[in-house]
Amino acid sequence: MKVEVLRLGHRIIRDQRVTTHVGLVARAFGANSMIFCGQRDEGVIETINKLVGLWGGGFEARYGGKNWKKIIRDWKEKKGAKVIHLTMYGEPLFEVVNSLRRVFNESDFLVVMGGEKVPKRLYKMADFNVSITNQPHSEIAALAVFLDHLFQGEELKKEFENVKIKVIPSSDKKLIKKKEKT
Amino acid sequence: MKVEVLRLGHRIIRDQRVTTHVGLVARAFGANSMIFCGQRDEGVIETINKLVGLWGGGFEARYGGKNWKKIIRDWKEKKGAKVIHLTMYGEPLFEVVNSLRRVFNESDFLVVMGGEKVPKRLYKMADFNVSITNQPHSEIAALAVFLDHLFQGEELKKEFENVKIKVIPSSDKKLIKKKEKT
Repeated sequence: MKVEVLRLGHRIIRDQRVTTHVGLVARAFGANSMIFCGQRDEGVIETINKLVGLWGGGFEARYGGKNWKKIIRDWKEKKGAKVIHLTMYGEPLFEVVNSLRRVFNESDFLVVMGGEKVPKRLYKMADFNVSITNQPHSEIAALAVFLDHLFQGEELKKEFENVKIKVIPSSDKKLIKKKEKT
Repeated sequence: MKVEVLRLGHRIIRDQRVTTHVGLVARAFGANSMIFCGQRDEGVIETINKLVGLWGGGFEARYGGKNWKKIIRDWKEKKGAKVIHLTMYGEPLFEVVNSLRRVFNESDFLVVMGGEKVPKRLYKMADFNVSITNQPHSEIAALAVFLDHLFQGEELKKEFENVKIKVIPSSDKKLIKKKEKT
């Protein structure tokens, strides 16, 4: 099934780097797409989509407007997706991950991350509120670890299609292979 | 054994949030301390140490000056630590993690993350150059997933000592317990 990541409360300039990291992590760890709400920010979309053009895969980032409740309702009602809210206040990942994997066999996931102020309504709208530790850290880290556990590390072996550039893994240097222009 | 995280090339203001996230992830995922090099930035240290005061544990963040090579050499020579450089150009985590765990039974780890421009010298000084996927994403995510694999998820169950505030995990709301002042 598919995973879309929904990032709420984006603030232009201030959140640009964090939201971009969220998008790149979503792509690298096997999610299919990212929507962000809050302020419109073409910079984030351009950075991510430009990178997809070079490094491959079919990942897409887009701006979802300000009405995040509508996005969540649409995903639940029309698409039958389950909504997973990543929050340090949720149930520990290691307690719920097996149930989540079973649900994921049947339903797409919309993985939601709040911004600076998380609206209370979100906790009720989510099908699962999941914590990646109950300590304060980073939404970027939470997303990566969540996807890594959901996919049981298999996403770390993922190969992307339509690449113009790729890394040759090395024990002691930086090696890149560029596809020749045809 | 212990893990210290070394973040290179910090730039004041521009990197404040990312370096703070690196520190909070280091703490939440079981590292013992963080040093950052580049520009001195009291804001990062204050934010992290204030949070440790509330949320507990013995984690410490400090500024290491500009001479990162000396820090690495000291860790290798005086402390006998192994230097793990997290980089998208390194050997895949899933191929080296078993060896790393064996090494970690005997030696402390200094986990190094470069800044915007990673000096070539770092690849040679590191005992291991490790990639958390060979895709571009985020040093914050890389650190979290690295520590999670090193500790095999056990760090997700970690309880911190001397807490003034803690989360009561919940499936549908935000619950916090504050320690009463005595």
